[in-house]
Amino acid sequence: MSATTNETKSIEAKLKDLGLKLPEPVKVPPEVKLPFSFVRVRGSQAYIAGHGPQNPDGTIARPLGKVGKDLSLEQGYQAARLTALSILANLKRELGELDRVAAWLRVFGMVNAAPGFSQLPQVINGFSDLILELYGPQRGAHARSAVGVAELPFSMPVEIEAAVEIA
Amino acid sequence: MSATTNETKSIEAKLKDLGLKLPEPVKVPPEVKLPFSFVRVRGSQAYIAGHGPQNPDGTIARPLGKVGKDLSLEQGYQAARLTALSILANLKRELGELDRVAAWLRVFGMVNAAPGFSQLPQVINGFSDLILELYGPQRGAHARSAVGVAELPFSMPVEIEAAVEIA
Amino acid sequence: MSATTNETKSIEAKLKDLGLKLPEPVKVPPEVKLPFSFVRVRGSQAYIAGHGPQNPDGTIARPLGKVGKDLSLEQGYQAARLTALSILANLKRELGELDRVAAWLRVFGMVNAAPGFSQLPQVINGFSDLILELYGPQRGAHARSAVGVAELPFSMPVEIEAAVEIA
Repeated sequence: MSATTNETKSIEAKLKDLGLKLPEPVKVPPEVKLPFSFVRVRGSQAYIAGHGPQNPDGTIARPLGKVGKDLSLEQGYQAARLTALSILANLKRELGELDRVAAWLRVFGMVNAAPGFSQLPQVINGFSDLILELYGPQRGAHARSAVGVAELPFSMPVEIEAAVEIA
Repeated sequence: MSATTNETKSIEAKLKDLGLKLPEPVKVPPEVKLPFSFVRVRGSQAYIAGHGPQNPDGTIARPLGKVGKDLSLEQGYQAARLTALSILANLKRELGELDRVAAWLRVFGMVNAAPGFSQLPQVINGFSDLILELYGPQRGAHARSAVGVAELPFSMPVEIEAAVEIA
Repeated sequence: MSATTNETKSIEAKLKDLGLKLPEPVKVPPEVKLPFSFVRVRGSQAYIAGHGPQNPDGTIARPLGKVGKDLSLEQGYQAARLTALSILANLKRELGELDRVAAWLRVFGMVNAAPGFSQLPQVINGFSDLILELYGPQRGAHARSAVGVAELPFSMPVEIEAAVEIA
């Protein structure tokens, strides 16, 4: 596949090439209310709520717990990659087409970190690597933080918040 | 009260109906300098600094400490609700009228979480529920993260940062 | 030096007056990939990735570890001040001139906090004090959060993310 072809391919065609499927809407235990918008669009900007890794059926993906104890670095990386798919799924539901994302702006990556585990960028790279592969170095570029938090909802290993510009 | 009436009521009238009072400017120990703006307005956007729960007189509300140990879930929820009032008080001081908030955009909710306490969305719901009650589902909608941090200033149980669009 | 003179001085002239030098691009161990932009500019806004304290040669500044245990409050303050220089260095590389920053908007200050250490605003003041000294109370004003996180990359004591408006 030539670079030109790749650049003109839709994001969804690229996802298909990679064998990746966007998950169903998130399923959480019925007693948990989440009274917020997963994607909030105003003008040319979309604010993206904190997302975590999901299975294709919408349930929260396992393993749960702390990276560096309950999950290896590689498992943390995979969780961050699944989190990218979770965000893309909600962007598609909100925007209709993933190619309406004109630019990634800000990515705030939070790792449920075991005490002493500081390889946080290496975990959140699971998110950044996929976004850059899909959107390329111009549209996909983003300012990023990668930090270790004390706890995350449902004991998820990763939660990522972001903002994008839309066309 | 009809839905129509409620929609045309000012935010401050709604606060009065609910028996809620906005707190005085925050009072912290005199040796602590806070050299930043609680609300920073540029163009059509207001950036809201991290706020915590306050008493009506401006002092930091007790109980202090970690939710899941020093505070129950319900006490954490109340702290998040008080934090909403703290933010509304500073928005009113900065904007003059709370109805100048045209849209809530982003809410970043941080919980001073005891080890193993992961019911973070349920705590930050104390903030979201009040904002949605006051501003309704259109203006009040917001992208949100709810996360557990290791420590917060003054050992507050909750700190919330946000951004809104203003008219 | 009169206030008028000071206001018309360039940010870089002020840095020179203070004897402060901007660090070289960040140097991290070669096996660590950081696939993101330190500054992401779109329209009139620059999104600034999480930065930490650097030495002039670009390496990460010591001491590393937790403020309140491995570092004193004063050492944490100095780390936050160095983090401001790290951000200014990347802003200069991206914008050409530091005076293109028309307004500081949002500052999110994260402290690698020892258990029980809650003097987080006093640490992040090392950042805010320098930005306000350089940019003055109008341009330099910013909404801010100061929070304690569980872990930071490379065990840095401080990481700061921000957003500015550019002219």
